[in-house]
Amino acid sequence: MAAEARLAPTPLLKDELDIVIPTIRNLDFLEMWRPFFQPYHLIIVQDGDPSKTIRVPEGFDYELYNRNDINRILGPKASCISFKDSACRCFGYMVSKKKYIYTIDDDCFVAKDPTGKGINALEQHIKNLLCPSTPFFFNTLYDPYREGADFVRGYPFSLRDGAPTAVSHGLWLNIPDYDAPTQLVKPLERNSRYVDAVLTIPKGTLFPMCGMNLAFDRELIGPAMYFGLMGDGQPIGRYDDMWAGWCTKVICDHLGLGVKTGLPYIWHSKASNPFVNLKKEYKGIFWQEELIPFFQEVVLPKECTTVQKCYLELAEQVKAKLSKVDDYFNKLADAMVTWIEAWNELNPGGAKSAALPSG
Amino acid sequence: MAAEARLAPTPLLKDELDIVIPTIRNLDFLEMWRPFFQPYHLIIVQDGDPSKTIRVPEGFDYELYNRNDINRILGPKASCISFKDSACRCFGYMVSKKKYIYTIDDDCFVAKDPTGKGINALEQHIKNLLCPSTPFFFNTLYDPYREGADFVRGYPFSLRDGAPTAVSHGLWLNIPDYDAPTQLVKPLERNSRYVDAVLTIPKGTLFPMCGMNLAFDRELIGPAMYFGLMGDGQPIGRYDDMWAGWCTKVICDHLGLGVKTGLPYIWHSKASNPFVNLKKEYKGIFWQEELIPFFQEVVLPKECTTVQKCYLELAEQVKAKLSKVDDYFNKLADAMVTWIEAWNELNPGGAKSAALPSG
Repeated sequence: MAAEARLAPTPLLKDELDIVIPTIRNLDFLEMWRPFFQPYHLIIVQDGDPSKTIRVPEGFDYELYNRNDINRILGPKASCISFKDSACRCFGYMVSKKKYIYTIDDDCFVAKDPTGKGINALEQHIKNLLCPSTPFFFNTLYDPYREGADFVRGYPFSLRDGAPTAVSHGLWLNIPDYDAPTQLVKPLERNSRYVDAVLTIPKGTLFPMCGMNLAFDRELIGPAMYFGLMGDGQPIGRYDDMWAGWCTKVICDHLGLGVKTGLPYIWHSKASNPFVNLKKEYKGIFWQEELIPFFQEVVLPKECTTVQKCYLELAEQVKAKLSKVDDYFNKLADAMVTWIEAWNELNPGGAKSAALPSG
Repeated sequence: MAAEARLAPTPLLKDELDIVIPTIRNLDFLEMWRPFFQPYHLIIVQDGDPSKTIRVPEGFDYELYNRNDINRILGPKASCISFKDSACRCFGYMVSKKKYIYTIDDDCFVAKDPTGKGINALEQHIKNLLCPSTPFFFNTLYDPYREGADFVRGYPFSLRDGAPTAVSHGLWLNIPDYDAPTQLVKPLERNSRYVDAVLTIPKGTLFPMCGMNLAFDRELIGPAMYFGLMGDGQPIGRYDDMWAGWCTKVICDHLGLGVKTGLPYIWHSKASNPFVNLKKEYKGIFWQEELIPFFQEVVLPKECTTVQKCYLELAEQVKAKLSKVDDYFNKLADAMVTWIEAWNELNPGGAKSAALPSG
């Protein structure tokens, strides 16, 4: 499988992948991506006032959901979907019927590789998702399945099959994804380093997952990709993707799935306002000091053989162990349960039981 | 400290670093490295016939040890130093009086960066060793202490001090460090991908440490850098650096020290003979299937507060749990103890007690 995936041309997966975009404020955005995105179906989830119209250029195949649609489709369960925050995008993951999701922000443009060629980010994500990951042992030449690379001396042969890849986390040139304090301290910093690598984040290691340029396998990990309660009426923002990343990573580790980071890059065009960001983030900045130890220590029991079961177990542990940090985590734990109920309602095919890794 | 290390020019550390080389069969080797190595003291450890003369070009400051020297200096404890194998290089780590060691093979030449400039590998290793590592959480923009980079959104602030860096593992352009089976299957594969990154191997993750282009802080981790029993009279070869890497990594994890990999590259000029390598490796290839789970599960008790104590504890566990794999591991466990005795004899300053991390 590894060798085949490496040598075959990357498939388009036109009928197996949806692109999910939280609102489009920028008409140039889709024009710029047209050569790469036009073959795909778009799911646009409007994050603010439903009476505003989002204009989508001609030639794109899309469906658009605003708050009224979400309320209509989910009924009382719509409470788990954030309002006035790009976290609402996770509704798109739920209504999709495809195997793969790519999600991207509307201020992310096509980046150029070092030769000056526009990078087809989606193609690289598909490559990443179709090739295995290597979460159980680190390969010093990075992705061993890539052309021109392999497993190095000392890499156990029994681990060379790797693990199915559930998540492909892409990076950003130009404006780096910094928190508000770092933005304030380094307003002029730009990321100009093109690191030509894809690597697996090892089992047991947490990372900050950014939702700007992210692809995943819905069938393998979809129900864990909940972006939490952010925005309108909530005490924090800008932790939607982080929350999803921590939950996803511990569940991937438990189920023996892989998470990759690195290529592809997009061009992140504009920095969000650091003052606004600070207001959204400041509680998260101290809460995360307790969240990280929590996620580092989470153990999911063996009976949790599906993403849904893992996620519900995680919700229970969040309630039991994080509600002392703030009452917000009680609400969030409840919303996690509601999210799974809504997911199961819209995806009645049921949960695929994963074969738990022996290691 | 992080910001200072990032902004200051990289110090030469002329009086604090020794370069350890296992035999020099190639006169071009030192000529090529002269601009970068000449300021340093070299320790050459001759791996074969002591009656052969190693020629060192004019202008280098060096000391040379052959088998007779090792026997004279260590007496009966010389049994822990391999003969007719480049694993003998670890004798150089032991006799050095410096804080830092850089070790390199004599078939490794100066690589060029993408702009065509010769890479001063040693300078990059020094940078890596002087900047902290980030073993407790993954930073998606790689080394956050590097110019133009930082910690991304969602990286806990309490972890941004990082951990002291004990090991800097450099990579290789041209001939990749493959095992014999991969060499045989892919005789023409060359590594031409320059990945412009340095990253920390997360806590709890093992990696294949290659001794070709490796630097470390002797004071922090020196006694764990034992290259085992290889070569003459031993059933395996080419696992010297791997063994050192696995031992080093679990001890670094226990003591809260960091291990980096990535830049700098050297140009690995020639592939060793895959048939000879297969003969050396074949037992290692199946033994490592049991060694990796062993190292993944090793727990060092809290009382092990120095590298020496950790290493002796590890030797005991090797004896208890790996001797059933092969009697070789009984011998190796004894040699590990002898190594520490010899180290302490030559380095009477004693072991620095590390402050164990709280996490």
